[in-house]
Amino acid sequence: MTQLSPPLAAKVAGLTSSAIRDLLKLTARGDIVSLAGGLPDAELMPGERIARAADSALRGTGSLQYTESPGWGPLRAVLAERETARLGRTVGVNEVFVTHGSQQALSLLAEVLLDPGALVVVEDPAYVGALQAFRAAGARIVAVPMDADGLRVDLLTELLERGERPAVVHTVSNFHNPGGVTMSPARRRELAVLAETHGFWVIEDDPYGELWFDRPAPEPVAVYSPQVIRLSSASKILAPTLRVGWMVAPAHVCRAVELLKQGADLCGSALTQQITTELLADTDWLTAHIGTVRAAYAERAKALTHSVRTRLGDRMTCSKAAGGMFVWAAFTDGTDTGALLPKALDAGVAYVPGQAFAVESAYPNALRMCFTTSSPSALDEAIARLARVSE
Amino acid sequence: MTQLSPPLAAKVAGLTSSAIRDLLKLTARGDIVSLAGGLPDAELMPGERIARAADSALRGTGSLQYTESPGWGPLRAVLAERETARLGRTVGVNEVFVTHGSQQALSLLAEVLLDPGALVVVEDPAYVGALQAFRAAGARIVAVPMDADGLRVDLLTELLERGERPAVVHTVSNFHNPGGVTMSPARRRELAVLAETHGFWVIEDDPYGELWFDRPAPEPVAVYSPQVIRLSSASKILAPTLRVGWMVAPAHVCRAVELLKQGADLCGSALTQQITTELLADTDWLTAHIGTVRAAYAERAKALTHSVRTRLGDRMTCSKAAGGMFVWAAFTDGTDTGALLPKALDAGVAYVPGQAFAVESAYPNALRMCFTTSSPSALDEAIARLARVSE
Repeated sequence: MTQLSPPLAAKVAGLTSSAIRDLLKLTARGDIVSLAGGLPDAELMPGERIARAADSALRGTGSLQYTESPGWGPLRAVLAERETARLGRTVGVNEVFVTHGSQQALSLLAEVLLDPGALVVVEDPAYVGALQAFRAAGARIVAVPMDADGLRVDLLTELLERGERPAVVHTVSNFHNPGGVTMSPARRRELAVLAETHGFWVIEDDPYGELWFDRPAPEPVAVYSPQVIRLSSASKILAPTLRVGWMVAPAHVCRAVELLKQGADLCGSALTQQITTELLADTDWLTAHIGTVRAAYAERAKALTHSVRTRLGDRMTCSKAAGGMFVWAAFTDGTDTGALLPKALDAGVAYVPGQAFAVESAYPNALRMCFTTSSPSALDEAIARLARVSE
Repeated sequence: MTQLSPPLAAKVAGLTSSAIRDLLKLTARGDIVSLAGGLPDAELMPGERIARAADSALRGTGSLQYTESPGWGPLRAVLAERETARLGRTVGVNEVFVTHGSQQALSLLAEVLLDPGALVVVEDPAYVGALQAFRAAGARIVAVPMDADGLRVDLLTELLERGERPAVVHTVSNFHNPGGVTMSPARRRELAVLAETHGFWVIEDDPYGELWFDRPAPEPVAVYSPQVIRLSSASKILAPTLRVGWMVAPAHVCRAVELLKQGADLCGSALTQQITTELLADTDWLTAHIGTVRAAYAERAKALTHSVRTRLGDRMTCSKAAGGMFVWAAFTDGTDTGALLPKALDAGVAYVPGQAFAVESAYPNALRMCFTTSSPSALDEAIARLARVSE
């Protein structure tokens, strides 16, 4: 039997193995309240609306065939219109590229923008999917910490002053996964200026921006510079099954990504792209639908943070939960969340230890909690269990 | 009239001169009979059956969420059962991996199996999607010619005797694209023995195997050795929109591909995978459906080759058209198919010149003709035009 090539072992080892997935397998036990997932709530997804759109798309044969590599034309047109509104400038269809979820945009951009050994700056703690894509491309990764206002742009500046020359800076600008924070408008402007001054790309990864609770997310970083490539996705506002993500980038970047997309998987699904087009173009329905998701997640997030405050008090800090799907929390009493996890699972609560998202800093006392798929009472019970086992 | 598909334009764009690419864009002209496409016939795709399966899948929320990276469990189970029948040995679910079309399997396998500079042997003329995937992985590519019995395994043997050590040999074993030929059973066995002796992987790329006309394709190369990784796809037997391809490979290869798939695009579409599962599991319906496609393509293929014989006679040789979607033909009178193309387009017939698929050999007199999307009379008219302009 032929073995995998020795460098494959290295490649595989270099990828953060999916600790989260392995953990999720353990949390299938029915008596566990899982805060460990990272999934939107399927109960809130518009199954019937998708079924109607599927039926309508399948009346023509155009939904059955291969589609264009950059995405079905009308979908790109709808996305260009949405992004024009979001960015406050005319976004052309040739600046919009549809990918198989925004993970594929990360992966193809990593290939397009990075030579092996190129420097990528990520946030610490980091979105694990981005680390996977950048590591697979052979990038050197340096992490810059975040605070309540998002990426510490002052520390990025110091890094640049020390002579580091990143090819890419990756940021989850809104309602960070896992950090829960949102980059302030001032830092967005500063980051854009740095990108132009130092000639790096910013990848603004924004799957959660529309899931704000009390007030809309700030204007995208991409508003401030054409050096910002903006990613978003239908997964969190409609359904992951559509596998529709998109990228807004200069036309020459889109063309380069197109060549790689052809080699990677030829094209996306004409069916799911047509469904997505119909739903995104039905703006009244869409606004109401996202409003429903937002209200449900807001209620859950508030229940979770309220429980943390009342049941753990000063023993735990946590992010504000102003939107998105996650709260990042940390024990202040030295509790090690990795060591605690087996006991927590015994007690019927699951979470992801902070260390799973660590790049350079250590987060032994931190944890990520996902509030999307549990009721307020289940979330309260989860925190009660966590408080009990961590005493 | 068939238009040059965007994906084909893309494929061609990746590999042929801009001159050919620009010329082929003209095939969108309504008066051109295009043999230049590479698409299955959308009119034969089971749109209504897919719509019923979509409706049924969308009654549950399970079809809306992210699915597992290696593919939805029941789809892998159905595929394992099909492949068990095809390979004559028990294929486990852990040996089946679902990809976003078989192009993604090529792309992920290239990353898993190849170090930069590794040698890949391909067939000449070659499937261009495979060249793209192998080139993207930085492989060194050597091509071995085919004859009417497929890959010249004797020439591969000579290459091995000269000390070349391929990591991978890629073959489109059945109804080759673009070559039209099928590898003989004897060569399949010889290839498998060479793989085991010399420790290389064979990637047996088999999207067309079920589209046989008069008699079934021979047993897969994968029957003869576990060193053969077998790829197939729902695109040609059901519909490309499903974006469902699959790979049968040793479990450790599937696990390595899984890690890369997570970084590439996380997972496929639960919806299209559930649709595919229902259609593949409905075996009576499937058998009848594939029979219909096979009969239609057989009629078209026979019409095309009959027209070539009657209208071009000794001036053109062509492959047997025993299945699949393509005929590979060559002028025997020295006609240069690249130089002829502008005149052919003027006369209302499009094809892809052989040079578009050349790796090491030259095919100045050859052309690929796709017979899937034109009626017998349109195919005859196309050949009449070709005969006229090449006189």
